[in-house]
Amino acid sequence: MNIDVIISADYVTPNKIKDKTVVVIDILRATSVIVTALKNGCKDVIPVLTVEEAKNIANKNRDNYILGGERNALKIDGFDCSNSPLEYTKDRVLGKTIVLTTTNGTKAINKSIGAKNILISALINAKSTSQRVVDINNDLVIINSGTYGEFSIDDFICSGYLIDCISNIKRDIVLSDIAKTAQFIYSKNKDIVGFMREASHYNRIKKLNLEKDLKYCMQKDITTIVPEYFNGRILDARNECVISKAF
Amino acid sequence: MNIDVIISADYVTPNKIKDKTVVVIDILRATSVIVTALKNGCKDVIPVLTVEEAKNIANKNRDNYILGGERNALKIDGFDCSNSPLEYTKDRVLGKTIVLTTTNGTKAINKSIGAKNILISALINAKSTSQRVVDINNDLVIINSGTYGEFSIDDFICSGYLIDCISNIKRDIVLSDIAKTAQFIYSKNKDIVGFMREASHYNRIKKLNLEKDLKYCMQKDITTIVPEYFNGRILDARNECVISKAF
Repeated sequence: MNIDVIISADYVTPNKIKDKTVVVIDILRATSVIVTALKNGCKDVIPVLTVEEAKNIANKNRDNYILGGERNALKIDGFDCSNSPLEYTKDRVLGKTIVLTTTNGTKAINKSIGAKNILISALINAKSTSQRVVDINNDLVIINSGTYGEFSIDDFICSGYLIDCISNIKRDIVLSDIAKTAQFIYSKNKDIVGFMREASHYNRIKKLNLEKDLKYCMQKDITTIVPEYFNGRILDARNECVISKAF
Repeated sequence: MNIDVIISADYVTPNKIKDKTVVVIDILRATSVIVTALKNGCKDVIPVLTVEEAKNIANKNRDNYILGGERNALKIDGFDCSNSPLEYTKDRVLGKTIVLTTTNGTKAINKSIGAKNILISALINAKSTSQRVVDINNDLVIINSGTYGEFSIDDFICSGYLIDCISNIKRDIVLSDIAKTAQFIYSKNKDIVGFMREASHYNRIKKLNLEKDLKYCMQKDITTIVPEYFNGRILDARNECVISKAF
């Protein structure tokens, strides 16, 4: 299995992901939101690029949908939830469809369309994601959403942790130079927090008094959920029943 | 001073380098060649993208020019030198113009056109480059040539060393996330060699029995030459007399 990392959604091209397993990472905070919402029993998540598109979908049957996401890290006018995973509680999301639009994460998911499999990961489900990647047993491209087109330390160290988890359960993996570098960064910063404090996006969110979000997103493996994208919807990949209903 | 790193020539766009100081790095081996040729007294280096373009320039007056470069890391038919810095000896290059075409390095230089200053660096002249960057005192973008469009560990660790040198002589620098990561990688691998052995391009060159080149390119600061690009030619930036003649 070859493993590569793309450091920003802006650098994704169709030929880089064709026939590959893709894991999309945007730990601060879109992919942490998606994992959390599915963990708490939402039916599915629809990632969209624009606010208008999100509203058009939700307005068809407002009771069934939760509008979530951010612009400039803040809640969007008329939306139910911001991009804080802590808002996607069981009470709020059970049985609902989340329509999510964020600056970086939903863009990265959109640019992954064309890959063979598209998994959604964050620190909170990295170990389970690694098992799913190994089960699929295909070449892997980890897409870091990045921040406004730029490399983001938070996504990169999560990629390193994911690669580390994969290397613990599979021997015959070949890492690209950037994948080796991600794993090295993780290996020297296993507590995550210290190096994450260097991330400009971490500090941007901290300034918005969202420290509870940061603390939550920096936890490793609090769930075994592995969201997967199928035809416009993200579902829990372990739940074949749910997936079969999607088609 | 803001410092950023672009991890591949493919990712350079005009807006990322406009009004900036750019340092181009391709330590294995194009920028090591350029630094070495100027150290050994060549008049200047003309970086070009194609073999045909190189031959057209040199054929105007074959005695004044040395044709150098590589395709697939090997010497080009009809050329005088390959991309080995060890071939650019004083005996061979003194007073001559080198016309250089390589797969990654000359492409990165070409894509840097539009920056305010374009400096050429490798491990062998990083410390002097850092002083020149500080003297210019402008925002800096370090361009890693990369290998066939991909991130390359060798260029990245050299970027980390350059950033480290700058941080030792200037306090008020602001590093992007990727610049911080490069400096971290260097700080944990100050001997360079150990981590470089992880680089796929290092191993590609090693397989071609070019270990002497690798050993040479991995030395820090064996010269104070700082090549700079002006209007199609690369000259020793310290030599104002030479530079004024170029215009």
